[in-house]
Amino acid sequence: MIDFCLVGAGFIGPVHAANLAAHAKARLSWVIDLNLAAARALGEKYGARSGSDLAAALADPDLDAVIVCTPPRTHAPIIEAAARAGKAIFCEKPVDLDLARVDACARVLAETGVPFHVGFNRRFDPTHRALHDAIRSGDIGRPEMLVLSSRDPEISPPDYVAAMPYGIFYDTMIHDFDMLRWLLNDEPVEIYARTACMLDEKENPHRDPDTAMVVLRMSKGALVHVNSSFRAVYGYDQRIEAFGDKGMLISGNHHPTSLERHGLDGIRRDPLLHFFIDRYAESYRRELDLFVQAVETGATPPIGVEDGRRALMIAEAGVRSAKSGVPVALQA
Amino acid sequence: MIDFCLVGAGFIGPVHAANLAAHAKARLSWVIDLNLAAARALGEKYGARSGSDLAAALADPDLDAVIVCTPPRTHAPIIEAAARAGKAIFCEKPVDLDLARVDACARVLAETGVPFHVGFNRRFDPTHRALHDAIRSGDIGRPEMLVLSSRDPEISPPDYVAAMPYGIFYDTMIHDFDMLRWLLNDEPVEIYARTACMLDEKENPHRDPDTAMVVLRMSKGALVHVNSSFRAVYGYDQRIEAFGDKGMLISGNHHPTSLERHGLDGIRRDPLLHFFIDRYAESYRRELDLFVQAVETGATPPIGVEDGRRALMIAEAGVRSAKSGVPVALQA
Amino acid sequence: MIDFCLVGAGFIGPVHAANLAAHAKARLSWVIDLNLAAARALGEKYGARSGSDLAAALADPDLDAVIVCTPPRTHAPIIEAAARAGKAIFCEKPVDLDLARVDACARVLAETGVPFHVGFNRRFDPTHRALHDAIRSGDIGRPEMLVLSSRDPEISPPDYVAAMPYGIFYDTMIHDFDMLRWLLNDEPVEIYARTACMLDEKENPHRDPDTAMVVLRMSKGALVHVNSSFRAVYGYDQRIEAFGDKGMLISGNHHPTSLERHGLDGIRRDPLLHFFIDRYAESYRRELDLFVQAVETGATPPIGVEDGRRALMIAEAGVRSAKSGVPVALQA
Amino acid sequence: MIDFCLVGAGFIGPVHAANLAAHAKARLSWVIDLNLAAARALGEKYGARSGSDLAAALADPDLDAVIVCTPPRTHAPIIEAAARAGKAIFCEKPVDLDLARVDACARVLAETGVPFHVGFNRRFDPTHRALHDAIRSGDIGRPEMLVLSSRDPEISPPDYVAAMPYGIFYDTMIHDFDMLRWLLNDEPVEIYARTACMLDEKENPHRDPDTAMVVLRMSKGALVHVNSSFRAVYGYDQRIEAFGDKGMLISGNHHPTSLERHGLDGIRRDPLLHFFIDRYAESYRRELDLFVQAVETGATPPIGVEDGRRALMIAEAGVRSAKSGVPVALQA
Repeated sequence: MIDFCLVGAGFIGPVHAANLAAHAKARLSWVIDLNLAAARALGEKYGARSGSDLAAALADPDLDAVIVCTPPRTHAPIIEAAARAGKAIFCEKPVDLDLARVDACARVLAETGVPFHVGFNRRFDPTHRALHDAIRSGDIGRPEMLVLSSRDPEISPPDYVAAMPYGIFYDTMIHDFDMLRWLLNDEPVEIYARTACMLDEKENPHRDPDTAMVVLRMSKGALVHVNSSFRAVYGYDQRIEAFGDKGMLISGNHHPTSLERHGLDGIRRDPLLHFFIDRYAESYRRELDLFVQAVETGATPPIGVEDGRRALMIAEAGVRSAKSGVPVALQA
Repeated sequence: MIDFCLVGAGFIGPVHAANLAAHAKARLSWVIDLNLAAARALGEKYGARSGSDLAAALADPDLDAVIVCTPPRTHAPIIEAAARAGKAIFCEKPVDLDLARVDACARVLAETGVPFHVGFNRRFDPTHRALHDAIRSGDIGRPEMLVLSSRDPEISPPDYVAAMPYGIFYDTMIHDFDMLRWLLNDEPVEIYARTACMLDEKENPHRDPDTAMVVLRMSKGALVHVNSSFRAVYGYDQRIEAFGDKGMLISGNHHPTSLERHGLDGIRRDPLLHFFIDRYAESYRRELDLFVQAVETGATPPIGVEDGRRALMIAEAGVRSAKSGVPVALQA
Repeated sequence: MIDFCLVGAGFIGPVHAANLAAHAKARLSWVIDLNLAAARALGEKYGARSGSDLAAALADPDLDAVIVCTPPRTHAPIIEAAARAGKAIFCEKPVDLDLARVDACARVLAETGVPFHVGFNRRFDPTHRALHDAIRSGDIGRPEMLVLSSRDPEISPPDYVAAMPYGIFYDTMIHDFDMLRWLLNDEPVEIYARTACMLDEKENPHRDPDTAMVVLRMSKGALVHVNSSFRAVYGYDQRIEAFGDKGMLISGNHHPTSLERHGLDGIRRDPLLHFFIDRYAESYRRELDLFVQAVETGATPPIGVEDGRRALMIAEAGVRSAKSGVPVALQA
Repeated sequence: MIDFCLVGAGFIGPVHAANLAAHAKARLSWVIDLNLAAARALGEKYGARSGSDLAAALADPDLDAVIVCTPPRTHAPIIEAAARAGKAIFCEKPVDLDLARVDACARVLAETGVPFHVGFNRRFDPTHRALHDAIRSGDIGRPEMLVLSSRDPEISPPDYVAAMPYGIFYDTMIHDFDMLRWLLNDEPVEIYARTACMLDEKENPHRDPDTAMVVLRMSKGALVHVNSSFRAVYGYDQRIEAFGDKGMLISGNHHPTSLERHGLDGIRRDPLLHFFIDRYAESYRRELDLFVQAVETGATPPIGVEDGRRALMIAEAGVRSAKSGVPVALQA
């Protein structure tokens, strides 16, 4: 049985808590949050101790692992503290928003040698993974083009946007930057990005980019396109298309039901799921399961700190291109 | 160049006239209709002679073929006259609504030896034909079940219904009875039918069945289901499903466009085509082309009088079952 | 917290055990099976007591509910014992294979007044339920036709088949007989059934029907078709189509992923799920959750003994029709 | 009746010839080709005069219109000669590959005032047009992103490639450049393009780009992506996706049949059509019909010389970006 401390009781925290509760080999033993009420509520629901002091939890000799669900800028110190306490770490992406800070983290992780995983959850979605496996097994031959559509139904609240300018790169497309590396098993050598503010002043008061189109060249030659928006009113839209000299693969959207309604106005299906937590519910379960397995068996967790660093590098270069209007080179 | 006389300028007549006009090896030279104005209008459009006297057209030594598009009860005498005049005949289904009358026709056709084709147009639809060819080539192994959905958007006008009681068998499902024979290359040995009047008094004043479900057993063992309705408000719904020991095939509906609309209320496609002439436009073209080829090369046209007789026999037995409430045996 | 005793550790038992373990308000406290090793293995996995003596478990005053997953012929005595012990009961379908025995059970349930639920799991599938709700909310107006395709990838082992002749009615289509009652909120007044043995001697040595087509008439007039097979090599195929005067609804199959592969040989999707437990995983979760809620709140569980009786009556009448070759009347 | 002279009997010429033959108000009266045998063969098939001397045909006072299907570099002189002869002109795209030459043509057309149409056939495809009309009618609100996938199954023969370097811009994506202007009713202000040579030396001996990704910014703010390849082994792949603040529209591929095959290896549909002439058969029919209508009624044909010039300007700027590696500005 692997004992977990969940740090961060809001947003994605309860998802991991529920998955831990349902997992045969894991146990939620601590919930830590600066918001003590939130920590307590979640702790009580699953019979875990709760508090606002991470150090207390890390001092628990029975604790095996920490799962970090706090806001991005707090990840690095939590990672370092947990690593120094010898705990295995599952950290929601990103490691940090600053490359130098990520590097510092990486050094601590290297010194302590604790198991570390960055939560790029999309890699664990059954359809995206089937796409990945089909590419690897040669279904489309040599990959030549990759097209990722990555669209959220709405923009984050203004204070969240203010805290992370160019969040469409750092918070959203960073998933796609990870996916393209993973799917193509390759690194980009160039990125070009164009952004726009399509939402009005009320929805997007900070005029932070809410729409983006990106083109990347990979070191092995493939071309990649990513498009992203914070206004997919029809639902959380997540599609990937891989094209090669032997064919094409499409990882399409998931539907809440398969119901088809035929009426005078045509044929209708349900809207897409609206919330990423619903769309990727299965991914979160599988990701946690693989992390638990890794901790149990001593294997390396699926996604390491270098993966976190690489995705951030691409996001940073993309922001520089968006600001300058010209392509930016990347080191493969 | 094959010279055609079109008999019957209404409804399906203009479809054949347009296809003849566009065909490289056929020519519309006569249009005959008791409604002289209709005959003239169509004749003028395509540069053909027109009139109400079939005998005049049949006396034309340049005339090669007759295409019969008049109401069902007039088919037999026209067939016989055309056969005796030595013309090739393309007759819209049914040959007649009375089996004895069909037999009489068949004798004249046998005596005269003219090329004869019954217009079961669905056999020429590209998707239904692909289904047929896939069954023949063993894609699903031995066929075990066949399910046909055959639904019209509306019932015929009251006088048309009055002229042909149980038209859902004689006019609509007769197509399916032909299809099941052709698809399975087999004959039914039993039919059970249940009907209902679902439309209200105004739409269906004669209370003729407007809804039907049928189960048939084939001589080689397959079970077949047909369902039919005169009230598919969402469009002309025509699907066939063939199930065997190696798999299943579905011939689905055709869509006017492939446009998908994603909005707040879900994902929408166009309604199905509403009119059988639009749905089967390509079938009518291919059917005529094959008939022209047969006449030109001296080959036997695709669907003979025996096929017309068999489909009518099944329809008749189905009506007897619907009336009696018990299954009716058929001679394979 | 509702304490459960699981009776029957094979087949569907482990599914319920896992769902109980993951449920926030339920606890698996006992596993009973005549096969003591099986009971023990499952009990140990979830920290429950195990044994082969149901009486011992029923004597546990902390026990709230029993979930019955044993072979059909053992259901009735277990139900009666559990009812007399005052426990809430979740019983896998059928209640029994004999109507008189079901009636005896029903009397004990009425006397004791314990909460009782029959596990027709399909009612809890999200897509089937969306279909149900759409019918109820008037999406298709008055229902006129219902078509259910209910096909298993393989036949049960010979001894299972021998123990339940005409299992395609009693074990498989009984689900569809329940669904049609639930979806149409109506009772059948007539059933006609035709069956066939399509599997060879080796696969189906008892020559029990492995293929069936059924037509039913409902008291409010709708016509219903069910087709079933034990040889859907392409996967567990479960579709329902409801047709009415305002449109049509289709509850289609579920796919393991949404991946599309485009290659020289066409466009390919994954095969359907092969196993009913995978296809209906979500249904089992939701069903148990609703049962737990009912027990907790004192509400009546969703599906009562009368529902079990009605579905069995239809199956029985269907078998009589299949044997006699003529339709059989049913009391609405 | 509008009398046509077809100039260029190869490739797309026979498509227009067949459509003219089937058109009620048009007649093919001349076929001109430097390859006299090709001109004769096509002329004989449709009962038209044939020859290699365009002047002879243009001198025919009964001739109303010229349809230009010759190689791109010959379009301009033919257009000018036909315009000076007072004939209506349907010219396959492009007008010319050189902007100055297009401008010279435009002056002659302006002076002579003859009806002129550039054959951007995709605008007449029923699905693309439904997409266009849905955008215009506000279905997706303000368009924010447009994604066009434009992939050919194979590269043109080496001599054709040699005659038109960067043909992926000038010959293929020029269609998309026209589509994006038409769909968005807007002009681009910037284009960025990246290309690659993915085909091997044998298939692409001139190492001309065979793969391309493009991002454009439109004057009203929308972002546009085009991706193109000469190696879609799975068929002619033509999709357009329009995203706006009220939803998304997808113009998907067309399928030769709707047949679905369910087997052990999954669910299979036919490959896409392989040839643009099959995919766009209906577009060519509708385009010609609208041109005939325009000539008959004196209306302006749908796509004028300025549209031809604009699409070429975008292609040119795209090539400059591909060569320089930086975005290129365009005048709206």
